[in-house]
Formats: sequence, structure tokens, C-alpha cells
Amino acid sequence: MARERLSEELRKAAESVNAFIEAQVGLPGEPEVLRESSLHAFRSGGKRWRPFMVLKACELVGGDPRRALPPAAAVEILHNFTLIHDDIMDRDEFRRGLPTVHVLWGIPQAILTGDKLFAKVFKVLTDSGKACGIPAETLLKIVDSLAQAALDICVGQTMDMLFEGRFDVSEDEYLSMVRAKTAALARASAEVGALVGGGTASEVQSLSRFGEEAGMAFQIVDDILGLIADEKELGKPVGSDIREGKKTLIIIHAFSKASPSSKARIARVLGNRGATQEEIHQTIEELRVLGSIEYAHRKSLEYAERAKSYLKAFPDRPAKDLLMELTDFFVERRY
Amino acid sequence: MARERLSEELRKAAESVNAFIEAQVGLPGEPEVLRESSLHAFRSGGKRWRPFMVLKACELVGGDPRRALPPAAAVEILHNFTLIHDDIMDRDEFRRGLPTVHVLWGIPQAILTGDKLFAKVFKVLTDSGKACGIPAETLLKIVDSLAQAALDICVGQTMDMLFEGRFDVSEDEYLSMVRAKTAALARASAEVGALVGGGTASEVQSLSRFGEEAGMAFQIVDDILGLIADEKELGKPVGSDIREGKKTLIIIHAFSKASPSSKARIARVLGNRGATQEEIHQTIEELRVLGSIEYAHRKSLEYAERAKSYLKAFPDRPAKDLLMELTDFFVERRY
Repeated sequence: MARERLSEELRKAAESVNAFIEAQVGLPGEPEVLRESSLHAFRSGGKRWRPFMVLKACELVGGDPRRALPPAAAVEILHNFTLIHDDIMDRDEFRRGLPTVHVLWGIPQAILTGDKLFAKVFKVLTDSGKACGIPAETLLKIVDSLAQAALDICVGQTMDMLFEGRFDVSEDEYLSMVRAKTAALARASAEVGALVGGGTASEVQSLSRFGEEAGMAFQIVDDILGLIADEKELGKPVGSDIREGKKTLIIIHAFSKASPSSKARIARVLGNRGATQEEIHQTIEELRVLGSIEYAHRKSLEYAERAKSYLKAFPDRPAKDLLMELTDFFVERRY
Repeated sequence: MARERLSEELRKAAESVNAFIEAQVGLPGEPEVLRESSLHAFRSGGKRWRPFMVLKACELVGGDPRRALPPAAAVEILHNFTLIHDDIMDRDEFRRGLPTVHVLWGIPQAILTGDKLFAKVFKVLTDSGKACGIPAETLLKIVDSLAQAALDICVGQTMDMLFEGRFDVSEDEYLSMVRAKTAALARASAEVGALVGGGTASEVQSLSRFGEEAGMAFQIVDDILGLIADEKELGKPVGSDIREGKKTLIIIHAFSKASPSSKARIARVLGNRGATQEEIHQTIEELRVLGSIEYAHRKSLEYAERAKSYLKAFPDRPAKDLLMELTDFFVERRY
């Protein structure tokens, strides 16, 4: 029942965020290719949980969620900018079942399209934020929070790429990387929601921590689903993280537990872009037998619990239940 | 004498902007590769005329130029972000005599390094802007102006790339492209200077127009220098615009004047990345004979005059002379 309610609320939020983005992302007189490529990412779907977090964090501190629509859209635009650039760097050809921007329009255009969306993040805040009656001081804090998240994402993505060439990445290194690459934007989402809702400094801090820990849980599960989800629901090839040599928590755990021969088998496939589907499936089976998938799953549950603990002190409001439920969904989802 | 004074003032401004950038661009705990690649662009020099415009526009409206240092640095950081990404798109291997970021660190890292600098633009404003006592309302206007310039640059760069595949680009199309790709940031430079200096709405508008027209003059001369400058002073191969098939004002004029056979000779070399140095030099000679270089030069003088006309109404202050002199320098420089 709670899950159905979350789905319904996510759907409603996505609808208004999508409409807002569709109306904002195009520029007057821009070349068709720039317009189409920047709308492409949004048209391929996505659950829009980041803007949902913005809206619900705003409600949770007693704010009007309509005011939170521009920052919610800004967060989603920022996220999509990073996806377009990440897909170039990781040479990913599919996302959410559709060809990626650089596959459709080439790398130079995909770089530009990402840059345009990044600029739009701030333009949406300055254009619509004021129109929605958000005070200048608050808008500046939101600009700061999103710029900080973007910096963290660049650090995290650099670490992620550096890890591809290493076999000795520690669990702590992986966790710092995820904190920067994924959790920072979840943190910013809850934080800007609390800011626009007029939350106290302590409420802003609690929501910021909630978002960050929930983001950790989300990413660890994302790594698991990249190995075990149904390819159609995943919208990209299963095991692409293995082909790219990504050092996920699962791989790091496996390396710490595996026998020398098992380790050698995994290392042969890891980072080998020409690996066959059979080799990928054998590797995934090996990771499962080593208990590495189960280990990552337990870790994700710990982060989800920690995230929810930051919500405890808030008064009981529908937004609180929904954020709790969203966190549970992160770790229970199958796609 | 006036030119010497300009050089000296440019040097002084560059010194403080460089020191500010050097102190701000690194992030605590970031990977070495991200730090080094983001400082690389700034270390290769550059005249820093954009931040100079910010500082002098601030002074011209009676503001304290020390307050203008963060927005001045932000403009220079934004400019360098666009250079890093443009160099990837245009496959340029040298800039200001040094290998470009993607040559030294690879395309994925260069994309990220650019993104990091772009995020830093806004972080510098939120971090240091407030510390310098710039009011929140003003800072938001500066955020808006720089985000708008970044959007314009993306539109301009998209147009520039689309033009590479076309032989029928009109002068008007070229001028719109330059207005977006280059003049927008010059406009924003003078505009944010006027904003931070507390200029009236009409002063802000005049300086914004000054910057835009001066930016037009600058780019047209840049296109000329790409053909006729000394390669060592230019810091990149002469004629790379021709190899890349760029539709500069010079090329557009030449196409409108050339005989069918001369047009065919130019078209054979234009956009041919394998063209020899001799073919490039013959093409440049052909453009000179057609009067196309002279034509572009005259156009640049018109823009410079128009730019200066927007300064006329300001009271006589050293900043006014320096901005006039800067505009003259744009069209008289030899590198």
C-alpha cells in the first residue's frame, strides 16, 4: 500500500517536473540539434527521485512545494548533464533503453549539450526562482549547494575513472568515490528542498545528511542491479560495469575473499571490453558464490537505515513517510 | 604611451586575477590529475582582458575594483572552461604554445576538467562574493549574466560546428554565431563589472553593449590573426581555422567575390585536415588578393568604433581611457 502511494506520488511529481523542464530547456532561436539533443535525455524517462526529494524535503519543513519546482527541475537538469558527459567518458551506448546522446549526435555535440544543460541549471534558478518568490539569499544558497554538488561529482567521476586502472582499490576509497559521485547530488536535493522550504539550519543539515546516506544506498544497489537486473528493465547491457573495469563494492569484496585462482578469473574479465556474454555471466556467478552481492546488499541496507534515522526527529507528515518509503524503495527495487 | 599604460594595467590586473584563481581553483582532497589539469589552462598565460574588463567597468561606474575580483576571476574561469571543451571539439592540439588539456590528459579527463571549472565559476561567486560584501541581489544578477553567457556560448559553438559542413554560410549567420560564441562573454564581462560596481540600469546596459561590440571586433581580428600572425606568437599552427573548415568572415567574403575557379581552389583546402603548409599559404594568399582580409579588418574597426561610442556618456575617468584603449588594442594587435 505504502509502495503504491509512493509510486503515485513519484508519478505526479515527475509529471510537473517534466512539464517544467520541457518548457524551460529549449532556448529561443537555438539550432535544432542543440534543442533535440538536450531534450533527448529527459524523454527517455527516469523515476525523477531527485526532484521528488527536493519537493518532499520542502514539504517536510513546512514549505510550499510549488515554490520548490524550479530547484527540483534544476537538480534533474544537473543530473542529466552529468549523465550525458559520463556516457561519453564511460563509452556507454545505451541508457534507459535509448541510444545515448553521443551515439546519436557525436561526441562534440554531446559535450556541448551537457554544457548547455549545466548552464541551464543556474538560469532556471535565476529566471524562475525569483518569479516563484524565493528570496535572493535562499537562491544563492541553492546556487552554492548545486555548484558544490557539481564539483563533488567531478571529483567522484575522476576517482571512478582512476580506479578502472587499479586492482587495489579499498572499500573506503570506493565509499569516498560514491559519496562524491552519487551521494553529493542526493544530499544537495534534500538540502535545497529544505532551504527553499525555509527550514531551520538544523533541519537543513538533517535533510542534507538524509539525502547523502540515501544516495549511498541508492548507488550500491545500482551497482548490484547492473549485474543481476533484467536487461530490458535495466535499459543497458548487464555487466557493463565489469566490461568497463569499474571497482564496485561487489568487486572489492570479491577480491578480498577470492582464492588466487578465482581472483585471476575475475581479473581476466574485469575491464575487458571484448568479454563475451558467457564470460560476464560466469563472473557474475563467481561474485554471487563469493557472497559479494549479498555483502553489498547488506551494506546498502545499513546506509538506508542511517538515512532514515535523520528523518526521525521531524514531525509526522505525509512527506516524512514518503521519504522513508523512497529510501526503502532504493534498497528493495529490482530495476 | 597610452598603449604602454594599458599593458602595465593589464599586467597588474592579470597578476591579481591569477593569484586569486591559483588560490581558488584547487579543491581540498581532489585527485592530482584533476588539480593539475585544471590549473594547466591558466598557467599557459593569456592577456586576461576579460577580467580586466570586469575590473575597469566596475571602476568606471564608481565601484571598488577589489570587490570585482571574484566576478573577474569567475569570468576568466568560465572562459578557460570553454577553451578546454572547444579544443576537444575542434581537435586543436596546441593553445598559447602548450599542448591542450585533452592532449595531455585524454578526452574523458578534459571533459571533466572543463566541467569542474564551470562549477567553480559559480562556487567562486557564492564563496568569495559574499565575503567581499557583494549584496545577494547583485550576486544573483551576476550568476544570471554568466549563466546566460554560457548558454549563448553553447549556441554559438553549435552554430560554428554546423557551419563547418556548409559552404553557403551568410555574413549575417557568421555575425550571429560570433555574437553568441565570443561577444556574449565580453558583454557579460563588462556587465558584471558594472553590476558589482553598483552602476545604474542604464550604465549597466551601456557597458553591456560596449562589451558585446568590443567582443565582435576582437573575434573578427582573431580570425585574421589565425591566418597572418607569427606562428610562435600565435601559439598554434597558422591556418588551423582553414583546416577545420571554419566559416570566418574572411572566407565568407572570399566566396562572395571569388571567380568559380578561385572558389574551387579555396573549397578544396577548406576543411581538409590533411592540407599541406604550402596549400594553406597559397589559400591565405588567395584570400589576401581577394581583399577578404582587408574587408574583415574594416569590419572589425566598425565594431570597435561602435563599442567605444557606448563609453562616450561616461565621466572621464582613467577606467574609461583604458577601456577605449583596450578596444583599440583589439583591432591593432599583431598576436
